Amino acid sequence: MSLSFEFATATRIIFGNLSVEKLPDLIASMGNNILLVTGKNTDRAEEVLSKIQKRDCRIAIFSVESEPTTTIIDEGINLARVEGCNLVVGLGGGSVIDSAKAIAAMVPNKGELLDYLEVIGQGKALVDDPLPCIAVPTTSGTGAEVTKNSVIKSVEHNVKVSLRSSKMYPDVALVDPVLTHSMSPELTASTGVDALTHLLETFVSNQANPFVDLLCREGMERISTSLERAYKNGEDAKARENMSMASMLGGMALANVKLGAVHGFAGPMGGMFSVAHGAVCACLLPPVMEVNIKAIKEQNEVERLKKYDVLAKILTGDRIAHAEDAIGWVNALIKDLNIPSLSKFGLTTADFPELIKKAKVSSSMKGNPVLLDDGKLMTILEKSL
Amino acid sequence: MSLSFEFATATRIIFGNLSVEKLPDLIASMGNNILLVTGKNTDRAEEVLSKIQKRDCRIAIFSVESEPTTTIIDEGINLARVEGCNLVVGLGGGSVIDSAKAIAAMVPNKGELLDYLEVIGQGKALVDDPLPCIAVPTTSGTGAEVTKNSVIKSVEHNVKVSLRSSKMYPDVALVDPVLTHSMSPELTASTGVDALTHLLETFVSNQANPFVDLLCREGMERISTSLERAYKNGEDAKARENMSMASMLGGMALANVKLGAVHGFAGPMGGMFSVAHGAVCACLLPPVMEVNIKAIKEQNEVERLKKYDVLAKILTGDRIAHAEDAIGWVNALIKDLNIPSLSKFGLTTADFPELIKKAKVSSSMKGNPVLLDDGKLMTILEKSL
Repeated sequence: MSLSFEFATATRIIFGNLSVEKLPDLIASMGNNILLVTGKNTDRAEEVLSKIQKRDCRIAIFSVESEPTTTIIDEGINLARVEGCNLVVGLGGGSVIDSAKAIAAMVPNKGELLDYLEVIGQGKALVDDPLPCIAVPTTSGTGAEVTKNSVIKSVEHNVKVSLRSSKMYPDVALVDPVLTHSMSPELTASTGVDALTHLLETFVSNQANPFVDLLCREGMERISTSLERAYKNGEDAKARENMSMASMLGGMALANVKLGAVHGFAGPMGGMFSVAHGAVCACLLPPVMEVNIKAIKEQNEVERLKKYDVLAKILTGDRIAHAEDAIGWVNALIKDLNIPSLSKFGLTTADFPELIKKAKVSSSMKGNPVLLDDGKLMTILEKSL
Repeated sequence: MSLSFEFATATRIIFGNLSVEKLPDLIASMGNNILLVTGKNTDRAEEVLSKIQKRDCRIAIFSVESEPTTTIIDEGINLARVEGCNLVVGLGGGSVIDSAKAIAAMVPNKGELLDYLEVIGQGKALVDDPLPCIAVPTTSGTGAEVTKNSVIKSVEHNVKVSLRSSKMYPDVALVDPVLTHSMSPELTASTGVDALTHLLETFVSNQANPFVDLLCREGMERISTSLERAYKNGEDAKARENMSMASMLGGMALANVKLGAVHGFAGPMGGMFSVAHGAVCACLLPPVMEVNIKAIKEQNEVERLKKYDVLAKILTGDRIAHAEDAIGWVNALIKDLNIPSLSKFGLTTADFPELIKKAKVSSSMKGNPVLLDDGKLMTILEKSL
């Protein structure tokens, strides 16, 4: 593998238990008219608000109650423009942080959001620098605090696509694992599998490089020891810490290396069905691994097979594990995490042709370690049900 | 070790053989009135210049012929201000890149350079953002392309100190290992030991954290297999690539974690004697390791001793190696690299009291894994001769 790569991440990373206590000072040092994007539950945002209000700052709260849609982002952009905000803070899960990043990006840029979206829009490049942005994740999955894209659903087009720009890395990623302690076991499971999928897909990506590999190996190791522990006991501080770290490492990886077939399918599926992104990943990951490993063996891609061997060793903790052992390990994990199959969410074989068509043009599919023809993509979907 | 840390690096990293070919486009995309800082030999800079001149860009070349002094930096600042430059490019070794970063930082900021310097000045914080800066290293040692400080010599005060700010990370670190192929064996040796020292000191630093450890382990592993190879054959592309990567990883580490006693002494020594920084590191590293390991054992600091055990395993490639084995490995390396002892450069025991006094107030000394009293500092110097 060539030692040739590009790398960028959030400008400044602050990681650690209780680091959220630094947030009020941080906000005050970066702006005085703040859009605070948060989720359905605004308790945490209100707490930050109360600590900020003693200062010379104005804060408008924008509550994002679902995965972001173009409509939601437009509302947020309008609010920030009307209020004249000079800083956007995202405090919440991946949807909240993606919303914050998209709003920060669009406020200073002219034209419609759609102009800037990939796949369904023109994918226009951002001209002006986004507003400064602080990302504070309360889940450990997307790694959105260190990525340069926002995943946005277009209800009209029935698909999830990205607003993406190297200008969109948050200025500060403030990662406090304690904020994730209150996640339900179900959310812990689905977000955790999302993080695992980021690390695994970028590690075997055809764009992989030794620098990102380093991050992936570390992240997968932390997940292998901690995801089930965090699922079983949300207050397991060590496990939560490892999951927050792994999630961030996954975000660093996916911002710099394209993913693969799991995320190639996950975008269109997320657009067509109301299902947690992590649950989609969980159902797709084992069949994608299986089909990829088989194709890699058929094509005698020795180096790529070695990558699967390495990740199998990391995940299983077994020094003599081979590629296929990783599939067994992931299957067992998903079973232990009680993640339901995709058919539970309404997916049927009738949806396959459209899904395959959309997945093939996705950005993520370009990172898959081998080119998968329609037959192989169909096999993946059949096995995912 | 707590999983609590801050991390920042160059905004964008471009790494790979022949990546320097991207430099003209990159420059043109970031500015149109450029100060190109380079070394004694301006051949490479002239080449870049010839490729840029077809475009709508002005370039002034500023040649830095020695380690940067306050006088040299002041000249560069004046030139950039007079020319109205809006981009600074550093193409050269650590001295050149440190000069470029310091000039970029000072051009928009009021007052004298001395006001902003640590130790000998007021260490004032930069108010305005530096000019955009691209760093292109032609050696593999300092990692200055991804650090936030510039080491500057004050002839008047007889010491090397830092201009340091989190605003000073280069906007782009363009690392092309091919540029290092022409380094002499002597320069390969001294810069390589500098990189090794960065990785080793940050790994055992009292400020170490698991994220930076990851970078250190990877860097030390690459150096263990490649420094001697690059020394013996400068055209060994794989070894050069590993050294460029290790040097960059060392820079990432030292920008986020304080170093230790080797660099604590190296600053004052570099100010008092004309000797390559890497050669100073080479002579100090084994005695510092010896004294540190002994002190750690006396104080029964189990976790810190373990770090030395880990690095011993990495450097020697021997799974059952222990802390002390690392000292033997480093001593053997320095012997193979033919690095002369400090007494060759004129250091005598008469200089020890002043060196100890200066080293104790250095920024780096604060990262040493254990507190070293005057007696222990004296032992280090005695053993380094």
